Amino acid sequence: MVKIAVLGCGTVGGGVFKLIKQNANDIEQRIGQKVEVKKVLERDADKAHSIGVTTELCTSYDEILQDDEIKIIVELIGGTEFAYDCIIKAIEAGKNVVTANKDLLAIKGEEIFSLAKQKGVDICFEASVAGSIPIIGPMQNVLCANTFSAIVGILNGTTNYILTKMNDFGLSYEEALKQAADLGYAEANPSSDVEGTDAARKIAILGSLAFNSRCTLSNVYCEGITKIVEKDIILAKKLGYTIKLIGMAKEKDDKIILFVRPTFVPMSHPLASVNDVFNAVFLKCDAADEIMLYGRGAGEMPTASSVVGDVMTICNSIANNTTGQHGLDCYKQKEILPIGELESSFCLRLRVADKPNVLAGIASELGNRGVSIESVIQSPVPDVDMASLTIITHKAKEQALQDAISSLKEKEYVEKAYIFMCLDKTN
Amino acid sequence: MVKIAVLGCGTVGGGVFKLIKQNANDIEQRIGQKVEVKKVLERDADKAHSIGVTTELCTSYDEILQDDEIKIIVELIGGTEFAYDCIIKAIEAGKNVVTANKDLLAIKGEEIFSLAKQKGVDICFEASVAGSIPIIGPMQNVLCANTFSAIVGILNGTTNYILTKMNDFGLSYEEALKQAADLGYAEANPSSDVEGTDAARKIAILGSLAFNSRCTLSNVYCEGITKIVEKDIILAKKLGYTIKLIGMAKEKDDKIILFVRPTFVPMSHPLASVNDVFNAVFLKCDAADEIMLYGRGAGEMPTASSVVGDVMTICNSIANNTTGQHGLDCYKQKEILPIGELESSFCLRLRVADKPNVLAGIASELGNRGVSIESVIQSPVPDVDMASLTIITHKAKEQALQDAISSLKEKEYVEKAYIFMCLDKTN
Repeated sequence: MVKIAVLGCGTVGGGVFKLIKQNANDIEQRIGQKVEVKKVLERDADKAHSIGVTTELCTSYDEILQDDEIKIIVELIGGTEFAYDCIIKAIEAGKNVVTANKDLLAIKGEEIFSLAKQKGVDICFEASVAGSIPIIGPMQNVLCANTFSAIVGILNGTTNYILTKMNDFGLSYEEALKQAADLGYAEANPSSDVEGTDAARKIAILGSLAFNSRCTLSNVYCEGITKIVEKDIILAKKLGYTIKLIGMAKEKDDKIILFVRPTFVPMSHPLASVNDVFNAVFLKCDAADEIMLYGRGAGEMPTASSVVGDVMTICNSIANNTTGQHGLDCYKQKEILPIGELESSFCLRLRVADKPNVLAGIASELGNRGVSIESVIQSPVPDVDMASLTIITHKAKEQALQDAISSLKEKEYVEKAYIFMCLDKTN
Repeated sequence: MVKIAVLGCGTVGGGVFKLIKQNANDIEQRIGQKVEVKKVLERDADKAHSIGVTTELCTSYDEILQDDEIKIIVELIGGTEFAYDCIIKAIEAGKNVVTANKDLLAIKGEEIFSLAKQKGVDICFEASVAGSIPIIGPMQNVLCANTFSAIVGILNGTTNYILTKMNDFGLSYEEALKQAADLGYAEANPSSDVEGTDAARKIAILGSLAFNSRCTLSNVYCEGITKIVEKDIILAKKLGYTIKLIGMAKEKDDKIILFVRPTFVPMSHPLASVNDVFNAVFLKCDAADEIMLYGRGAGEMPTASSVVGDVMTICNSIANNTTGQHGLDCYKQKEILPIGELESSFCLRLRVADKPNVLAGIASELGNRGVSIESVIQSPVPDVDMASLTIITHKAKEQALQDAISSLKEKEYVEKAYIFMCLDKTN
């Protein structure tokens, strides 16, 4: 029998409790021992009982730390303050940790994982990225013989839901966000979702894992979806793309670039058909080539699936006396490149005066910076003397595009200019 | 340093050798020790050298068995005779085994896995199902807290390539098969692919794993793709489906049903966009809900990715002194149901005389057996006095459909009658 404590009785905490109960027999058969939630740290007893928690509630964390029977602490509090203290103290006390806390791991990963290693305890975090989707496990196990060159993910369900509704039903951003909020997919303050921060935390964790070099939230260039307008979506469709909020970590010549941004994804790409609240992670590896892992990125039972899977992994470590091997050790230190160094094809959107020589002027601003044009669509904007111009470039450095945009914005004939990255097989 | 032997120097054997060399540094960092291919069992020295194998070649298996330094045997011979002997002898000699041999595991799984457990050695088989795709690992680890209710897979790249070309370019089965053969995707004798046997072996392995109850090849109802005609494909498209060769294992009330058959997959289903030689496995689980794992199902480096991943897993077991825990233990014994017990919606295709009362006659044959109709499309067949009739049924028992078909075939107005299963979210 392995006894565990759960910190925090929110949606996921309730799911963990329920899942351990619901599949108790199979869990016991599979790992050769029972798992029991001995204590739950939660001040609000009514809340705990309302989600079916029948175990002993504590209000003091020390009580859990001092309980020698408790071998695994499941941290589901979230945030970077009290949760940080809890995890550090658990490790110091020689207890193994399961956490879903991406906020914390994307900032304090190095400290937490190295302390765990030093103290010989496991720290498992499958639920911190993409909810139920097996991604940490496969990268650390089945795919561990590969060198990864890129990870491309749809890592936030709220924004994917919003973009799917904008794409499929022509909703505006505001309408789609309202629908997401009504369905409980978006929080009262959705900023960490819609600004891309949530996805950025996850891509920092995945980048650390893929490239064996620590990546943190501050290394991730981040752009959200709040500025996307219906016309962008329509245009993407016309060109054979769909707009997704993509989190990406890629490596070239031992240097890493990480970002989250709205991206034109070709309809033929496996990520293009990942819709609604579903998440997916696409991996580019030297041996396995292309792998995509797809599923629910959040929710009570899907997240509990990964948390309880981690608990079972640690139960095996305990039984084998091999704790201290699960974590996220980074044995290399690679340079992080600024976003300007990104090489990709881009979609440049402009609103310009509808008069002679405008296209020539724009094309030469691009050409002078080595950016070559793959295709152009120009259409008049009704009722004003303006034109909407869309340019798909060949592969170019982002900095060259940004310089061209700065320069174009100074021209009297340019009213607006912005870019989307275009995903392709070579990104 | 862990020393291994590789049996068989075909495409995958060469890939394993290459991958261990290519990523030697990272492999060592990740598992804390070097991996060396000490011996290769291969009679054809020219073949071995031509694919870059520089290690010692043996022609006698005993030499490998008697080499105490060799801790892991990688069986890549295939087939069920010599490979079977090799694996049994390896286990008897206390050596751990990595195998990609689905033919063998789908027939002799029980014997092999129980012997391995008894002898305390690991047997890993990630590459036996869906090449590079992490599926055995995630089911045994990250998803191990779940109860699975169904596994639905596109498990054979050759047939998926053929069906993709028939669908996208209107090729006939024969034309698409020729193209697959020209590209090296189909073997000279493609029968185990196109008749569904290859996929059936894989679904037997996945069924055993998902339901903790041994499933073998003979438990799998199997239908290939050779009878699919262009009109079936066109019709499926018109109705919003694409035809895929689906392998499925599902459980209901502790009973298992397993099959491989051409299936109407709705375009909105994640499996519908799995094209060309790619494979994918879709899992229905109680906690994680829907998971899909996608990638290359065959090929030199993709298969080597899974094989070397397994080798690294066993290296960890050896270092930890915990071998004997990796295998496929089935702790339940569940009844296998005949295909007639399958409940699904179906697409019934008929070619009938174009005269009054025919539809009424067919509808009453179905209705009398409790099969209700969701939709009907009738169109005349040019130049003859016949009509093509397509009926999508509501959920019904397959046996009822088959009985109706038998009875319909006796009517003078029915020339042809056959069915496709339709996949839906409730299958």
